[in-house]
Amino acid sequence: MATRRELLAGLAAVSLFPLRKGESKTMDQRVSIVTLGVKDLETSKKFYVDGFGWKPVFENKEIIFFQTGGMVFALFLRDQLAADFQMDAATFGHAAMALGYNVRAKSEVNPLIQRAVAAGATILKPAREASWGGYSGYFADPDGFAWEVAWNPAWLLAADGSVEFR
Amino acid sequence: MATRRELLAGLAAVSLFPLRKGESKTMDQRVSIVTLGVKDLETSKKFYVDGFGWKPVFENKEIIFFQTGGMVFALFLRDQLAADFQMDAATFGHAAMALGYNVRAKSEVNPLIQRAVAAGATILKPAREASWGGYSGYFADPDGFAWEVAWNPAWLLAADGSVEFR
Repeated sequence: MATRRELLAGLAAVSLFPLRKGESKTMDQRVSIVTLGVKDLETSKKFYVDGFGWKPVFENKEIIFFQTGGMVFALFLRDQLAADFQMDAATFGHAAMALGYNVRAKSEVNPLIQRAVAAGATILKPAREASWGGYSGYFADPDGFAWEVAWNPAWLLAADGSVEFR
Repeated sequence: MATRRELLAGLAAVSLFPLRKGESKTMDQRVSIVTLGVKDLETSKKFYVDGFGWKPVFENKEIIFFQTGGMVFALFLRDQLAADFQMDAATFGHAAMALGYNVRAKSEVNPLIQRAVAAGATILKPAREASWGGYSGYFADPDGFAWEVAWNPAWLLAADGSVEFR
């Protein structure tokens, strides 16, 4: 039996979020875009385009977009990003966040980290055997964003690179 | 004609990254996982599971994984995340980063932001007409991570929610 609190919560949800045709009832389980705020777009472009070998789908003097599977990955001038969500860019610190790139073979991890370093990355943690049974290391991009390069035998990558949690 | 510098650069690339069978020559254009470092997993779970309506594919006392399209989205205790890439968690500040969630209809933006607020989000920027021709607003999750909810008429969403840049 539902408690009074649950009933009230349900009621609040109904009255706050009336459904119209075509509207989602909930947030679908997806992320449309990840935008990193960067200090210098040329430096970032050199890193991601020349270093990673990624090809932009759009770029101007403020932002660069990459198609990454069914998601978009963006590099945006951090002052502009700060303005976009009304943050003071001076308060930006190290992000409590990591991006991950999984590979199919353990032997791919170190060459990719070396490649990133050659492109200007800093090693945060040299690759090593992981407690969860894989092998991984971390580097920081030019703005300090942490990227993990990981081989995880429990995570299969599809032909298109999608990862499906098992 | 290649300059001496280009030739040397090519040589360095070859010797630094010998290709073996099954190894990627470059970083494919994809992101496997986005991990947010969070202070309290119960608070975050309440926000993303109860608030967003997302269903974890795995969880324990340190981490929660969600399947988000061909990518995994993770909430990880920030101290553990910090240890994972050898960062001092005390130096974590506001992330110069935003996550984005695009919707199919302009009318979906405000109800979703209200829904997030009801679940504990803070509004960073109320939704408004955007300079790029859409409509969007920002909220912060319990750890301050910025999420944009956007309707962008130039970005079509596929049936599965994938966004493809045009």
